[in-house]
Parts: sequence; structure tokens; C-alpha cells
Amino acid sequence: MSEIEEKRRFLVSKLRQFPDFPSPGILFEDIMPIFADPIAFNTLLDVMADHLQKTHDKIDVIVGLESRGFLFGPSLALRLNCAFAPVRKAGKLPGETVKAEYQKEYGTDVFEMQKGILPAKSKIVVVDDIIATGGSAKAAGDLIAQLGCEVLEYLFLMELSFLKGRDKLSSPVYTILAGQE
Amino acid sequence: MSEIEEKRRFLVSKLRQFPDFPSPGILFEDIMPIFADPIAFNTLLDVMADHLQKTHDKIDVIVGLESRGFLFGPSLALRLNCAFAPVRKAGKLPGETVKAEYQKEYGTDVFEMQKGILPAKSKIVVVDDIIATGGSAKAAGDLIAQLGCEVLEYLFLMELSFLKGRDKLSSPVYTILAGQE
Repeated sequence: MSEIEEKRRFLVSKLRQFPDFPSPGILFEDIMPIFADPIAFNTLLDVMADHLQKTHDKIDVIVGLESRGFLFGPSLALRLNCAFAPVRKAGKLPGETVKAEYQKEYGTDVFEMQKGILPAKSKIVVVDDIIATGGSAKAAGDLIAQLGCEVLEYLFLMELSFLKGRDKLSSPVYTILAGQE
Repeated sequence: MSEIEEKRRFLVSKLRQFPDFPSPGILFEDIMPIFADPIAFNTLLDVMADHLQKTHDKIDVIVGLESRGFLFGPSLALRLNCAFAPVRKAGKLPGETVKAEYQKEYGTDVFEMQKGILPAKSKIVVVDDIIATGGSAKAAGDLIAQLGCEVLEYLFLMELSFLKGRDKLSSPVYTILAGQE
């Protein structure tokens, strides 16, 4: 087993499962134990950085989705020595913004990014904890396109693959804890 | 000028001011440029870690408030080689939780923490971007007390001191970008 595969299995062993959360029939995978253990959190950054460094020549900005993407996006950016920029829910960011709508279980929600936060033509990796229907990731991609930048990849910890969220996205999708290697 | 004071001034120079956001008469200090520059973000962690290491013998857990406390809380915990645990809005965390209410501008909101996320009798530093009325920080302190742990300090980037939020809190308050030194 490769060192990275061992690290990935260690991270999977840290997840805690909660049946019927947030609603009946859903098995919730809790990532918080990773952040409660600095060895695990460092291991997560190792695995993400290893994958990204093997895959891309140059990443300018990590874009993280509010709010679980904030838990590791900034640390990952620091590890890669690049910028971090947030996607936030409507009304939270000051100044001029771009907006994109996405579907939630009930109704729609709006994401925003600040104009000027991304240098022109930046190469971006979008991060979040999980891809489900892909609606929020697609909205993030729309914001980045409006700002004249390119999504190199969407990077998640986990994936609800039966929801086929990755089919909505026009850049590659990688899931750290899904055992692709 | 001390090296730390130079770093603090560099960080202050990174803030961007937006008048009348989120409502008329408020001057919003935007911290996002700090995360958009890995040198600035590292400098922020330097200044926070320097202060905490001078002030406390041992910190077990950094507790960060959703969602701007998530932007630097986990990285700070990693720098200090300690755990990170989140305070989240009601309904976001799986499993058994403790709850605490706090006042918002309109109505009340509820914060939660997971039971079992904090080892018994942990010594905690609570972090968030800004202290205004102190209501959300006080709620975080209540949660930590319910979990049988001790708040060593509340640590913020900024403070709206005219709102006297620190008077609500029963542990010391430190504001990184307020120039106390």
C-alpha cells in the first residue's frame, strides 16, 4: 500500500457516521474528528497537497465554499503558498460582488464572490467538504467564470455519487476519501 | 518598533474599509485580503501564536465560531499543535449537542457544540473575527462550560469597543489588530 493510500485510510477511520441526519434515510459522515486531531488534519493537507501538486503545474487560488470549505481551504492554500478566496451566502460580503443561484432541497439560495478578489485569469481549485447534487459547486464555478478565471478542478473530501453531482460540473472532480487510487 | 508590532501594522494595512455595510452608518472592515495573501495569512498566525504562547502554558483546543472563525481557527490550532472544534448554528452538527441562545439584531439565534468533541476539563481559546455586542462569544463560553471545560481567553481580530462586548465575558479578551502592545 502506498504511503498516500495509508494516509487516506487513516483519514477515513477518523470519520464518524450518524444515521438519519439531517433527515431520515441519510447517513451523515462527520468530518469534525479530523480537525480535532492535529495529526489527522496535517494528514488531510498532505493528501490534498500531494494530489494537487501531481495534477497541476500551478494553482493561483483555492476557493472555499461557506462554511465547511472554510475549515480546510485556507490551510490548504497556505500549504500550497497560494491565495484563498471565499464563496459566501448572499449579503455577507462587502463591496461589489458577482452572484449565482443554486437549488437547495427547498427553494433556491444565492452565492456571492467579491469582484477584485481573484486576479484576472487565475487558475482555481474549488474546495468543499462534500459533493451531493453539485448545485453549490456549479454556482461557485459560475462565479469564477463571471470573474474571468478558470476552474482547474473541484476537490471534495466526500461524494454522494448516486446523486451524480459531478455531471453538472465542466471541470474535473476529485474526491479525497473515495479511494480513486 | 518590535517585530510583532511591525507584523500587526502590516496586517492592519491589509484590511479594506467599506462604509455603510451591512447597514447605513457601519464601517465594515474586510479581513478577506489577509487570506488572499499567504504572507499575510502566515503573519496573522505568527502574531496570534506569539501572543498565545506568551500568555498560556498549555492550550488544548481552539474553538472557532461559524463561519469566519473557521477561516483561521483550524490553521491556528495546527500551528499550536492542538485540536480545533467548531461552534455551529443550530441543526448543522450531528449527534448529541449542547445549545446556547444569543441575541441578534433581530430576534435570537442558537449555537451548538457536539458532546464529546472536547476532552473533559480542556483548556480552550475561543476565536472569531470580531467582537461586537459579545452575545455570540458569550454563547460559545456557555457551551464550553456545559461541556465541563475552561475558557482561557477569547481572541478576536477586531473589536467594536463602543459596544462593550468584553464586559459580557468572564474570561480575558484579546484583540489582535487593536494595538494593545
